[in-house]
Amino acid sequence: MFIEQSRFFVIAMSKNKKPIRPKARQPRGFADRTADDIRAVEEMMAGIKAVFELYGFDPVETPLFEYTDALGKFLPDSDRPNEGVFSLQDDDEQWMSLRYDLTAPLARYVAQNINEIQLPYRTYRAGYVFRNEKPGPGRFRQFMQFDADTVGAPSVSADAEMCMMMADTMEKLGIARGDYVIRVNNRKVLDGVMEAIGIGDDEHAGTRLSVLRAIDKLDKFGPDGVKLLLQAGRWEGGNEGAGDFTKGAGLDEAQADKVLDYISGVAIEENDGVAELELIETLVRSAGYDETRIRIDPSVVRGLEYYTGPVYECELTFDVTNEKGETVQFGSVAGGGRYDGLVQRFTGQSVPATGFSIGVSRLMTALKNLGKLETRKLQAPVVVCVMDRDADSLGRYQKMVQALRDAGIRAELYQGNPKQFGKQLQYADRRGSAVAVIQGGDERAAGRVQLKDLIAGAEAAKAIESREEWVEQKPAQISVAETDLVTEVRNILARYGD
Amino acid sequence: MFIEQSRFFVIAMSKNKKPIRPKARQPRGFADRTADDIRAVEEMMAGIKAVFELYGFDPVETPLFEYTDALGKFLPDSDRPNEGVFSLQDDDEQWMSLRYDLTAPLARYVAQNINEIQLPYRTYRAGYVFRNEKPGPGRFRQFMQFDADTVGAPSVSADAEMCMMMADTMEKLGIARGDYVIRVNNRKVLDGVMEAIGIGDDEHAGTRLSVLRAIDKLDKFGPDGVKLLLQAGRWEGGNEGAGDFTKGAGLDEAQADKVLDYISGVAIEENDGVAELELIETLVRSAGYDETRIRIDPSVVRGLEYYTGPVYECELTFDVTNEKGETVQFGSVAGGGRYDGLVQRFTGQSVPATGFSIGVSRLMTALKNLGKLETRKLQAPVVVCVMDRDADSLGRYQKMVQALRDAGIRAELYQGNPKQFGKQLQYADRRGSAVAVIQGGDERAAGRVQLKDLIAGAEAAKAIESREEWVEQKPAQISVAETDLVTEVRNILARYGD
Repeated sequence: MFIEQSRFFVIAMSKNKKPIRPKARQPRGFADRTADDIRAVEEMMAGIKAVFELYGFDPVETPLFEYTDALGKFLPDSDRPNEGVFSLQDDDEQWMSLRYDLTAPLARYVAQNINEIQLPYRTYRAGYVFRNEKPGPGRFRQFMQFDADTVGAPSVSADAEMCMMMADTMEKLGIARGDYVIRVNNRKVLDGVMEAIGIGDDEHAGTRLSVLRAIDKLDKFGPDGVKLLLQAGRWEGGNEGAGDFTKGAGLDEAQADKVLDYISGVAIEENDGVAELELIETLVRSAGYDETRIRIDPSVVRGLEYYTGPVYECELTFDVTNEKGETVQFGSVAGGGRYDGLVQRFTGQSVPATGFSIGVSRLMTALKNLGKLETRKLQAPVVVCVMDRDADSLGRYQKMVQALRDAGIRAELYQGNPKQFGKQLQYADRRGSAVAVIQGGDERAAGRVQLKDLIAGAEAAKAIESREEWVEQKPAQISVAETDLVTEVRNILARYGD
Repeated sequence: MFIEQSRFFVIAMSKNKKPIRPKARQPRGFADRTADDIRAVEEMMAGIKAVFELYGFDPVETPLFEYTDALGKFLPDSDRPNEGVFSLQDDDEQWMSLRYDLTAPLARYVAQNINEIQLPYRTYRAGYVFRNEKPGPGRFRQFMQFDADTVGAPSVSADAEMCMMMADTMEKLGIARGDYVIRVNNRKVLDGVMEAIGIGDDEHAGTRLSVLRAIDKLDKFGPDGVKLLLQAGRWEGGNEGAGDFTKGAGLDEAQADKVLDYISGVAIEENDGVAELELIETLVRSAGYDETRIRIDPSVVRGLEYYTGPVYECELTFDVTNEKGETVQFGSVAGGGRYDGLVQRFTGQSVPATGFSIGVSRLMTALKNLGKLETRKLQAPVVVCVMDRDADSLGRYQKMVQALRDAGIRAELYQGNPKQFGKQLQYADRRGSAVAVIQGGDERAAGRVQLKDLIAGAEAAKAIESREEWVEQKPAQISVAETDLVTEVRNILARYGD
């Protein structure tokens, strides 16, 4: 299966036969991940998964590509459809795109398998999503989301459960009660306000979206900033001419004030949305979640137009210092809501659904800030040094390595150039190894090995002044019978825990 | 962060205002994965990871995209470079491609970070790779690989270790000794043969690749088939005119015979390659791996031209029935070798490396064949039914669900339309739930709940003839105090193990 790729590995030659060397770098906006980060994310995701499974959710996975039309955008008359997503044309001329979230592919999956899936369908998914946007600091074009959805659930009791699950997830990850809050609202309430100010009809769809986005900025710009965004617009720096100008929703002052009254909770009329919020509140309180954990809040809107009922957001409330040196609340790490129309796009049939998405990197950053990322350190491997390079000696070293591994101890034979012994010890040190195993010709003949406790050795070295003294004392180094190798190594490792 | 996507969710309207519905289907050659498959692969990958970590390997991850030039192919004068890979042009005109394996990105990563990485660098990676090829049965365009590599390791003792690690991985996954074998060869030996028959020079690079591919088909077509491929070529069906014709390497009969002598082990001349193989054999035997587990075999070539020394392949030797109904050995599930030139492509510096790749789906298929996939079944959730829909009743159901979860029991409130009670029990049944929790108005007033043992109930149902009898007997259903809910549910679950 690898055959067809071989042509890629010929080194390119320019005309004068000097090799052309490609530059080694990642594409803009894409990042590599190192061992510590990978292990920390794995541990965090295992915690999230445990909570989701306790709530009766099961995993499902869709491919990274979807047909562009299934993602919900229409092909413009252009060679590059879908600014914002990565798209390419298949050899049968169909456009495919890399998924930009995990909700649209789930809707496609449910629509495709609607006759086989047992509804209500509780499901979770973690995976990479892609945005074809300008990268910036902390703004990547490939990032991971972790989603949970219940599909085929008409009652807001499913939304209530999502809120409780978000709260439980935060606590499972070690975020203390009081450091997070789930804020809940209902689009139907806001829809009532929109109708009341005369922008409820089809012609005002764009205005409504601008209103949503304006309200979504309450945390960032305060009521005054939101008011500007609801009317003519707002300058980035706050004052006229400062930075970029964001065009507003175009409401007049009376309309804007009504919206502001609503988000500050001053004026809420009774409607279906309010009744739904009251039911959510009853359900979560019955289950033991007080308002420090789950709270009704009219300022939550979520910027997506497809939500049709309750919307909810998980916010971390502890303080952090932002890039400008200001103290601010950490903010949102997850959010979602009810979307009753997404599956219907495909089937015509209404399939009510609700769910949320966790931004994995952002949540990781939060845990780092809270010092909750002390992951169980994996013990660095024991290094067996290479003193002699004949086949018999190498075979004997290899046997020791394998004996350690058979006993469940991480171990490795030094695989670099063995000429300089000092480099081998330096390697073991940098690796964080606790023990180096050394066997020269004399020891081999006598059936013995030297074990060097590298951690104690580094300590002892501080007190030793000369090389002679060092060679004579050989601090933290013991000679043991080769047959006792595993036992003696285990004794040293036991000093350093795990 | 979701704001900019909202435009995707407007339902398209054609001119006569009838909605255009996209078809719900995956792109050609891409597949969805369901819960059982996801859990089985996770369990398998955890086993592989455990072995790799025991050997001192640490994870690293690269993004799914690389710049096309970093992958090693050159841009033709075409809008679609790189047949075989998925490529697209970034807005700064640079071509990016989805990775088609995990080796080329690792070479880029090491070259980019050569000053920070502690060599020898032992590392593993699992992830999706993409091939822009014609999909077919069992042939996907997105699939998972699991790789291990040691970079900066000049000695073949690193290759020997790879072979042992492959063997240990198979045993960790439950594949019995005797059901797998690691076969090892060395490209340098074959290179000697190529030189001896006069195709060792630059002009014959294409011929050499054809020879490699021909030898790689020994398992499939036998020595006679390989001989045809070494000379003029071979018809798919074996006889002239049967199926497609594969052009051969163009050797004459004497040349072809020399190659065949070599792969059958008849004629091997002493050279560096042979000495390296002897050292590998000494090392693995010293470490306790006999020739039923790791075996030198001159017919292993691996179809990739970039290998520069030892090549190795993990083959499963038990019989399976292929799509034609023939009994055949299962065959290769992993393979790799030494590639000393890949990092050099970027840096000009030689960085010797060796590693292998496991085909995750193929290995999964093997484990299924061996019946080694009895994964620990996750207990299906307890379902709390919805009998009354007023807020107080719903709150009380929710409280029960949460009490079960707090006790570590998977549980869910029925979130479908609760009007038909029968549908709720049907749902619980199909879900595989062991217990349904039922509380109507009378029970609520008395502080009691009904627990229905769905598994015993299904058994009992077989013996009951009429609906009347059923209603009267309520088989496998007990009434318990609501305060004893958790204890009593746990008692029922204990009957069905975990």
